[in-house]
Formats: sequence, structure tokens, C-alpha cells
Amino acid sequence: MPTLVIMRHGESQANRDNIFTGWSDVPLTETGVSQAHQAGRIIFESGLQFNDVHTSFLKRAIITTHIVLDEINQNFIPEHKSWRLNERHYGGLRGKNKLAVKEKVGANQLKIWRRSFSVVPPLLKKRDKDARYDRYGVKVPLGESLQMAQQRLIPYWIDQVAPQLLDNKNQLIVAHGSTLRALIKFLENISDEEIPNIEVPNGKPIRYDFDDRLKILSKQFMTSDNDS
Amino acid sequence: MPTLVIMRHGESQANRDNIFTGWSDVPLTETGVSQAHQAGRIIFESGLQFNDVHTSFLKRAIITTHIVLDEINQNFIPEHKSWRLNERHYGGLRGKNKLAVKEKVGANQLKIWRRSFSVVPPLLKKRDKDARYDRYGVKVPLGESLQMAQQRLIPYWIDQVAPQLLDNKNQLIVAHGSTLRALIKFLENISDEEIPNIEVPNGKPIRYDFDDRLKILSKQFMTSDNDS
Repeated sequence: MPTLVIMRHGESQANRDNIFTGWSDVPLTETGVSQAHQAGRIIFESGLQFNDVHTSFLKRAIITTHIVLDEINQNFIPEHKSWRLNERHYGGLRGKNKLAVKEKVGANQLKIWRRSFSVVPPLLKKRDKDARYDRYGVKVPLGESLQMAQQRLIPYWIDQVAPQLLDNKNQLIVAHGSTLRALIKFLENISDEEIPNIEVPNGKPIRYDFDDRLKILSKQFMTSDNDS
Repeated sequence: MPTLVIMRHGESQANRDNIFTGWSDVPLTETGVSQAHQAGRIIFESGLQFNDVHTSFLKRAIITTHIVLDEINQNFIPEHKSWRLNERHYGGLRGKNKLAVKEKVGANQLKIWRRSFSVVPPLLKKRDKDARYDRYGVKVPLGESLQMAQQRLIPYWIDQVAPQLLDNKNQLIVAHGSTLRALIKFLENISDEEIPNIEVPNGKPIRYDFDDRLKILSKQFMTSDNDS
């Protein structure tokens, strides 16, 4: 029976500073690096062998991936990077402090922008230039709702991840808070009303075990034998 | 005009201890990690943008790759791992100290085993089991001459690297001392008699600039502006 482990990157500088980030390419903090090592050790204890790892084009996810691969001693598995696993693009909120936004627009509007499924953030007026996306013909979004992020994420799941799981090959995904929320919503068929309550913490691997038709048999946050 | 940078991994524990390694998966030393960072900084100064990076299934090359990608701020480029870029398999010499071998068989025989093109090392009697190769249908060799390593390396060059360069896309290869010697021999048409004199040091990026038909226009060890 196939197993999927999904994990959000370790703490980034923007996480630490409480800033909206999205497609900006910020590094991990020292705490984030430690979280990645700890997550790797936890996955190592499980004994899981992965056939592939999937991550985004953003270094906070990629560096987390590399730390985890080394901790689990599976550096050699194919690593697939895709813009489709990038964090949701926060548009005009990008670079802004969340508390400052809250003071300006109120807690309710902030929560809607952060956690609702279909509400689009204020859009950028001008598209960012970033050559890493040009080769794939991808226009950097001006801003995305969680739904828009889900719409570009799910084709990746369908094409690149699900077929491997159906072939009984364990998969690891290291991505971002919002894209993992979107994936969890899809996998668990969570309603638009419930999704605001789902949080994905930094550096905590979540394990899904499936039957051979990808019905979820169990879901759990992975923990260390040494945590008690 | 396309550019290729090739680089041997930073110092491994086996390099430090003067031990034959081959397909054994040994880690970098602290010196090796530093060499990888320094190499990355040198490549960063060149301003080269790569379309792809290629490395082996062995962690000393993969970890070096990851350090370099971060130093050049190109974590996002596709990373292709192949067993074809693995170090030459040293057969029965694997795990043995080079000085001890020299004392046993003499300096001349040691040099032949280390540096000749076609001489095969003593073969292992039993094939190693290593699941990472099974999915590709690869039998781990019992031992390889440099020529045998070249024969499984060149198809990778032909299929995966040369077409990208012909498409004017800069390529980075992070691999091993013997496989890079084999590649250099092929690229520069070096004779079997001359190849024993070619050495590829740890963590020193070598830059090839080609014309649009892959004729070499220049070759140089890359250096830092701060080296003087």
C-alpha cells in the first residue's frame, strides 16, 4: 500500500517576521534549518523508502528537501521541482507585515485574505519578471486565491504524483503552507467553509497511507519515538 | 555560445583517508563542504546562468551540487541524477588504503590501476545489492576500468548534456574524479597514453566555452577575483 508524506518547509525569514511572501524567494532561518533536520530524523525513524520527492521552485522548500533527503539517506532519489507546487501568490500583500495589514483593514478582512478559499488578494499592477518561469511559459501570477493556487496544483498531483502512488511507489512532497492546504482540501474533500480552519505548521511531516485505489486509510502527523 | 562547467565533488572522507571508494556512498568532510561553498562562490562571480545541473547517485556529488546551487542562487534549476555519472567502480580495491595497496603490489601496479585507461581492477566476486539501481535495471559493476566507466558515461553526455548545449543552454556537471577524467578525455580527444597525466582536483570548477557545434573555444579552471 502506498504512502505519501507531505511537509511544509522549515521556518523562513518571512515566517519569522510575519510577512506575506508567496513567490518571493526567501531563505530559511536557523530555526527553519533545525526544523528540517528534525523532520528528516522523524521520517528516517519511520523507515519509509521514497521513490520520488517533489518540491517547488522556491529555495525555502528546496533547501528543506535537501536537508530531509540527507537525513533519511535517500539523496539519490529523483527530485522534481515544479512551479505548480509554489506557494500561493499573495499579490499586493506580498512583502507586507500581517499585523500592519490587520491594523489597516481589520482582523476579519485579514482572515478572509489569509484563509478563505476563493477570495483573491489585491492584485499586483505589474507582473514580476523572473526568468526561472519563462522556460515553462509560465506568467508569474498577479495574485492568487487559494482556489487559483489549487487549480494549478492539482494537474501536478494528477500527472506526477497520483500515478506513482497507484504504482505503489511512496512519494514525498515538500512544499508550502497554502499549497499543502489546497492539496489537503482536495485529498480529504474538505468544504470551502471548513478549509479556513486547516493549518499546516512548518517542518511537521504528515503521513497518508492509501489503499490501492488511493482511498485514505490513515492520516497522521509523524512523531519521533524520542518525543515522549 | 554555450558554456559547460564541470566539477569534482568536495573532499570526501575517503579522499581524506586515501581510500579507494567508487560506488560506496561516503559523505563529504568539513573541508569538502568548505570547498563546495568556495566553488559555488567562484561560479557565482562568473555570473553564469545554468539551465540544468547533472550529478550522480552518490551523496558526495549530490551534496556538493546542493551547496553550489545555493551559492549561485539557482536552487530552482532542474537537477538530474544519473548512475551513469557515478565514480568508476573500483572493484576489489574498494575500501582499501592506497598506500597499503602500494606496499603490497608496488607503485607501478598501483599507478596502472589508478590511472591507466583500459586496465580493469581486481573484480569483486559478489555483486553488491543496492536498491537505488534496481529501478533502472542497472547491475552494480563488479569493477570497472576507466574505459568501462567512459562507455556508460558517454551515452549520458550524448543524450542529456550535448543536446542542451547545442540548444545554447549552459550546463553544470558535478561528478567524480574518474568519470570527469573520462569525460575530459572524450571532449578533448586525449590519447590513452596521455590520460594518466590528467588529474581533476576536488571542488575546482572547470569551464568550457564552445562554439555552436560544440568545438571547444576555451577551457579554464575558474578562479575568484579575490584569489590574488
